[in-house]
Amino acid sequence: MKIALDVLGGDNAPKSNLVGVKDYLEQYTENPAELILLGNKEYISKYLKSIQIDQSLITIINTTQEVGIHEKPSRIFKEKPDSSLVRSIQLLKENKVDAVLSAGNTGALLATSLFLLGKIPNIRRPAFAPYIPTRHGGFILCDAGANPNSKPLDLVQCALMASAYTAHLNTISNPSVSLLNIGKEENKGNDLIIQTYPLLKKHLNNFIGNLEPRYIMEGKADVVIADGFTGNIVLKLTEGVFSHIIDWFHDLYFTHVNTEQQSSEFLSILKEIQNSLDHEEYGATPLLGINGLVMKCHGSSTSRGISNSIYSTQKAIEDSLLENIENNLAQHMDLTQEAIINE
Amino acid sequence: MKIALDVLGGDNAPKSNLVGVKDYLEQYTENPAELILLGNKEYISKYLKSIQIDQSLITIINTTQEVGIHEKPSRIFKEKPDSSLVRSIQLLKENKVDAVLSAGNTGALLATSLFLLGKIPNIRRPAFAPYIPTRHGGFILCDAGANPNSKPLDLVQCALMASAYTAHLNTISNPSVSLLNIGKEENKGNDLIIQTYPLLKKHLNNFIGNLEPRYIMEGKADVVIADGFTGNIVLKLTEGVFSHIIDWFHDLYFTHVNTEQQSSEFLSILKEIQNSLDHEEYGATPLLGINGLVMKCHGSSTSRGISNSIYSTQKAIEDSLLENIENNLAQHMDLTQEAIINE
Repeated sequence: MKIALDVLGGDNAPKSNLVGVKDYLEQYTENPAELILLGNKEYISKYLKSIQIDQSLITIINTTQEVGIHEKPSRIFKEKPDSSLVRSIQLLKENKVDAVLSAGNTGALLATSLFLLGKIPNIRRPAFAPYIPTRHGGFILCDAGANPNSKPLDLVQCALMASAYTAHLNTISNPSVSLLNIGKEENKGNDLIIQTYPLLKKHLNNFIGNLEPRYIMEGKADVVIADGFTGNIVLKLTEGVFSHIIDWFHDLYFTHVNTEQQSSEFLSILKEIQNSLDHEEYGATPLLGINGLVMKCHGSSTSRGISNSIYSTQKAIEDSLLENIENNLAQHMDLTQEAIINE
Repeated sequence: MKIALDVLGGDNAPKSNLVGVKDYLEQYTENPAELILLGNKEYISKYLKSIQIDQSLITIINTTQEVGIHEKPSRIFKEKPDSSLVRSIQLLKENKVDAVLSAGNTGALLATSLFLLGKIPNIRRPAFAPYIPTRHGGFILCDAGANPNSKPLDLVQCALMASAYTAHLNTISNPSVSLLNIGKEENKGNDLIIQTYPLLKKHLNNFIGNLEPRYIMEGKADVVIADGFTGNIVLKLTEGVFSHIIDWFHDLYFTHVNTEQQSSEFLSILKEIQNSLDHEEYGATPLLGINGLVMKCHGSSTSRGISNSIYSTQKAIEDSLLENIENNLAQHMDLTQEAIINE
């Protein structure tokens, strides 16, 4: 099993990525993947030596270009063909690796994957499906931003792909799927959601109906479906509100509680909540709908996030995640035809 | 000045509404409004006596029908013409009151207002603009759910109306307006947002650009513009995430910290945050775009919320809020024509 790692991707690259590689190899010793590291070969070799890593499972491929976080995604595969990002996906296209992992520019990763690998047959648009942690164990949100102009068919395909992915993650056979909406009733919502509801009801035996955002954190569904615009708003707003209130709590505590009264318990509770909400715990998520296993981890990943992400990539290969998603879609071939007629 | 109060509207009606009336009359003694209470006259009279309220500023109008919270909004004004909700708005239509206040079925209030009062000239769709509290003082979110299928012109009209409303609330002359989006750049977002951006830039001298939801709580803008679907998601998700984490904190504290260690300071910090986030503090908000002052307060309002809402209604009348909104729109008459041509 071989995984290509975009060493230059992410806010803390390249160092945190390389330390992440070391952590992975030391922590996950049972049948670890071979790792193909792409970036500046001289730098990588030197740094790997300095952190005393066992290089028996590592191959380094030299690349000469770098992709910035704010570069226009659609041009990357033409303008930066020798970047670690593009070369990683090229390796997957040539079947030289089983999966790609990157913490880099998400749009560039998506556009390059679409161009080089294409989509799973009959899939119209790829989707992001990150895990959103809560005190009740969290849920998968799909689409969290790949397609800001989703159509009803896209959302049903999101639901089928995210179901297969969630089953893989949680090792449950039939995860519950809900549709994010501004009301519980079938006739509520905007035009997109009202048109999507009956399609989900027809094609998913695990569809549990609309879910209001007020209850999204309460563990009522394993999968929450949203259009890519709303999904991305939910993803970023949730992070924003969580950190807003945690900071607020922290500041008030240290302003109002005098030094003698301060309990270390308060800080450990704060830490416990922050750890539960930490995306790094859960590793990378696949770009759903891409015809190849391309795993994306958070841009701000530290070595711990990278290490967990390499492991989640390994698991996705071992469990044949891509084939499972394709199978789940193949059972609903009628869907594509039907929805296109109705559009 | 006369305000009609829908005594039967809200989860805690009618008692909390009547206690709210008492609180208002006792607390806001400087030029208080005359209050027209609509509901079961016999019950109201009896209850007012029992709570020993000064009835010199109160008129009671008997109504015989009730509007449920889950009733289909579009039929209310036909099917429940003698409900406290419909009769209140009828009074406003006949110029017998200066404003209506209700904590009842929001959709019914909106549909009935549209039917009986109509819209401000040139306004295409009404909008909700609640105040979202944060540690930095909060912001106005518009549209928070009146129109789930907003068009670019609707969002610009939202921005003009919400600007006038925010200026009234905060007594600042030129509140900053941002557009909620999944990225900062002008070319980011879904089709609606990409089309709205240049219109806002052209018609609002107080437009500060796109705002990502991660930073929505950080006090970067006085007004946040969103389509009604996304706005309603933001409103309810924010409430959901806040209460999720506050409950989490609370439960962990009482599980992990033994009784001797527990400090009353922790609870007072919790209370301080909850108070700051309490919608009741801020009173009712107008249905923007309706040709009459119809104020909506939260369905779960207690007497405190009602009391504050009567006062915020009084202030809106005193400050000629409706006229200010109309004036702000009148300065952009070109907008309507232009946007319709472009659609």
